[in-house]
Amino acid sequence: MTRDSAPLPQGSTIGILGGGQLGRMLALAAARLGMKTHVFCPDPQSPAFDVTPHKTVAAYDDEAALEAFAAAVDVVTYEFENVPAWTAEFLAERKPLRPGANALAIAQDRLAEKAFLSVNRIAVAPFAAIPSVEQLEDELGEIGMPAVLKTTRMGYDGKGQRTIRKKSGAAAAFEALSPKPLVLEAFVPFEKEISVVVARNAAGQVAAFDPAENLHHDHILRTSTVPAGIKRKTAKRAREAAEKIVTALDYAGVLGVEFFVLADGSLLVNEIAPRVHNSGHWTEAVCITDQFEQHIRAVCNWPLGNPSRLADVVMENLIGDEIAAVPASLGAEDRPHAYGKAESRPGRKMGHINRVRARTPSN
Amino acid sequence: MTRDSAPLPQGSTIGILGGGQLGRMLALAAARLGMKTHVFCPDPQSPAFDVTPHKTVAAYDDEAALEAFAAAVDVVTYEFENVPAWTAEFLAERKPLRPGANALAIAQDRLAEKAFLSVNRIAVAPFAAIPSVEQLEDELGEIGMPAVLKTTRMGYDGKGQRTIRKKSGAAAAFEALSPKPLVLEAFVPFEKEISVVVARNAAGQVAAFDPAENLHHDHILRTSTVPAGIKRKTAKRAREAAEKIVTALDYAGVLGVEFFVLADGSLLVNEIAPRVHNSGHWTEAVCITDQFEQHIRAVCNWPLGNPSRLADVVMENLIGDEIAAVPASLGAEDRPHAYGKAESRPGRKMGHINRVRARTPSN
Repeated sequence: MTRDSAPLPQGSTIGILGGGQLGRMLALAAARLGMKTHVFCPDPQSPAFDVTPHKTVAAYDDEAALEAFAAAVDVVTYEFENVPAWTAEFLAERKPLRPGANALAIAQDRLAEKAFLSVNRIAVAPFAAIPSVEQLEDELGEIGMPAVLKTTRMGYDGKGQRTIRKKSGAAAAFEALSPKPLVLEAFVPFEKEISVVVARNAAGQVAAFDPAENLHHDHILRTSTVPAGIKRKTAKRAREAAEKIVTALDYAGVLGVEFFVLADGSLLVNEIAPRVHNSGHWTEAVCITDQFEQHIRAVCNWPLGNPSRLADVVMENLIGDEIAAVPASLGAEDRPHAYGKAESRPGRKMGHINRVRARTPSN
Repeated sequence: MTRDSAPLPQGSTIGILGGGQLGRMLALAAARLGMKTHVFCPDPQSPAFDVTPHKTVAAYDDEAALEAFAAAVDVVTYEFENVPAWTAEFLAERKPLRPGANALAIAQDRLAEKAFLSVNRIAVAPFAAIPSVEQLEDELGEIGMPAVLKTTRMGYDGKGQRTIRKKSGAAAAFEALSPKPLVLEAFVPFEKEISVVVARNAAGQVAAFDPAENLHHDHILRTSTVPAGIKRKTAKRAREAAEKIVTALDYAGVLGVEFFVLADGSLLVNEIAPRVHNSGHWTEAVCITDQFEQHIRAVCNWPLGNPSRLADVVMENLIGDEIAAVPASLGAEDRPHAYGKAESRPGRKMGHINRVRARTPSN
């Protein structure tokens, strides 16, 4: 028997839940390390199925399929935080699940996440649980307006949230989102959004990438720019907060932390994601070790690689038809990554381009 | 119909002949560009089969298998220069073969290769065709000793060659290698071996990587170091010679050129390989565009990427049991690449490590 903390040998099979672009890029990184991958996804057209011969097309609650999947792999990881708790538990009883169920539970629930961060003295925007319209109206007084009412679970890319600017809008916002459990969050007047991708392995080794400065449009990430336009000490504090989070979680894998940067340079964590992160795609073009390889190393109990970067970079998501930029308008310093999705739809992430720039002397 | 020089669209399928580590790394690069791959290889245990769901296990002269393969792909490329001429012709009649049959023909025959280089005013060591022992003895007088007698075809990793130090050894060397067609080459007192990996696409765009300095042991590449310990003008001449070769061949793809560097700084081409090259594996760790992506771009008629490097690097092959260095003795700046081969045998290339170093200011 291999001890749980021994490095997983080359030739082992990594089970990946989710066959989207993140699963695909994880599988590519695993292959570079001599690992096999088996991708489990309900969608028969999953992009990750193009990069491994081992796949399961089944629902996440298909017990027989999960049983066979667990038997075929040596460790299980995932590309999305909304893995059903039952599925995670079922698999974790059979094979190591990395990152662990605790990270999933926290990341799946905005209230649990904020409670975890607060307990660990990581600053977040003021928030409150909202069980009723009355409570919402009270808390709007406490927290102030504008404020954002969100479902505690399954929100992403701006779905499942309403901004409330006046008390008169409270009832309609509550109506629109209830009866799901809700959380009210202060609308923070932030100057920038940044994110830090951080890795930790079972041996407790921790490595954070440089912060990226992120621009969103219609709640979808458009660009991540590195270095971020923030002070050196702000960058240092962001990395330290990210490292504190993975240590507190006793985490194995890569985790993304999104921060708001306020006018005075202080940081609030917006959310965490227990997986490789869109805002970390720049690492593949300019870092000694990229986030995908780092995640695979971490979940295999391998030593982590150096996350230092060798150049400046702007990562640009290609949404919908923008994928036609590849190869039509590629510059020589553009490193394209296309996800191999058969169908381009508005709002769908189809690929990204890392635009590599000479490193500025000051960073 | 797509014109032959139009860029191949994302989602196209690249057929790869050969399922070893080079085919595997080509398939990984193709996936990053949104391409599918179909690997054709007689060996059911081929490493490349782990990174694509599309494979054909058949002999290179299996007409039915080749017919089906050609029908399933949009362009054909290869990971090894000894693709049988009949196979290449059969496929080229059905789908674009890149690089083309002329490059294969020249690279498969050391005499044809040296004639091609000489005609194009690229310096090579003195050589002569050797049809008989008598001719061999004559040529040893012309060319001098030591000299190396080689089969014109199918030599690799030191196989198919004999060094002759005295005329008395001529007959035995001829006996050992005949009746294959043979070539005698002067033994060149070189100071270093370097190589340049160069790419060209159908539009005639050409891009050469920096020269690597190569160390061999038992005729197997051990390390490639970049920058090479050569003068800037020597590096420039090596790149120019490589660019001249791909232009003369009207080439599409990546090609490796091995040079001897003599004491006076002059260069002789040792051999060319119409494929991605072991001495170019360093590019994946430190270049804006690596040789695998560059090859896929070139055979797809895409614009080439910038081959500039962002750091210094030493690529070390992992031969046989040395693969156990991954992950056991990985340093933080070591970028490992394991080929996923099931069985480690003495002399077998199992993986490599790119050891990344800060860029020295002078290069």
